[in-house]
Amino acid sequence: MARFMDVHHGMKGITAEQLRAAHTADQAIEGEEGVHFQQTWADPESGTVYCLSEAPTKEAVQRVHARTGHPADEIHPVPLSA
Amino acid sequence: MARFMDVHHGMKGITAEQLRAAHTADQAIEGEEGVHFQQTWADPESGTVYCLSEAPTKEAVQRVHARTGHPADEIHPVPLSA
Repeated sequence: MARFMDVHHGMKGITAEQLRAAHTADQAIEGEEGVHFQQTWADPESGTVYCLSEAPTKEAVQRVHARTGHPADEIHPVPLSA
Repeated sequence: MARFMDVHHGMKGITAEQLRAAHTADQAIEGEEGVHFQQTWADPESGTVYCLSEAPTKEAVQRVHARTGHPADEIHPVPLSA
């Protein structure tokens, strides 16, 4: 398992409820891809959403996001943390 | 207090030790600006570093990063999380 930070752009005006719904949708199917979405943060003003996950590959992360209707614009492995 | 995600580019090849040292340097002075750096993640391959903080303003986050020698390239408020 590796850790990933993915980024979504163009989400201007996203609400707390929409963020929670998207996160819940991802978590409902993440197990099928061996992914676990740990946390997500959003900036409604710039329309940026960040998701932190543990997953076997970045493709697995993208498959979950794509299936729930919000593919990520960037997915970076983040092997280091402090 | 608000929550911020800041992003540093151009950190290709950053090591676990360098990330920890930078985070420790930030935390050593963060109190002077009323900031708390909660966590940081790095992708040595793309050279991207993400820092999650709580702070009074984005300028306060930047003052800490600037004083420790690594100003952020982007600082986004992230008022929403899930």
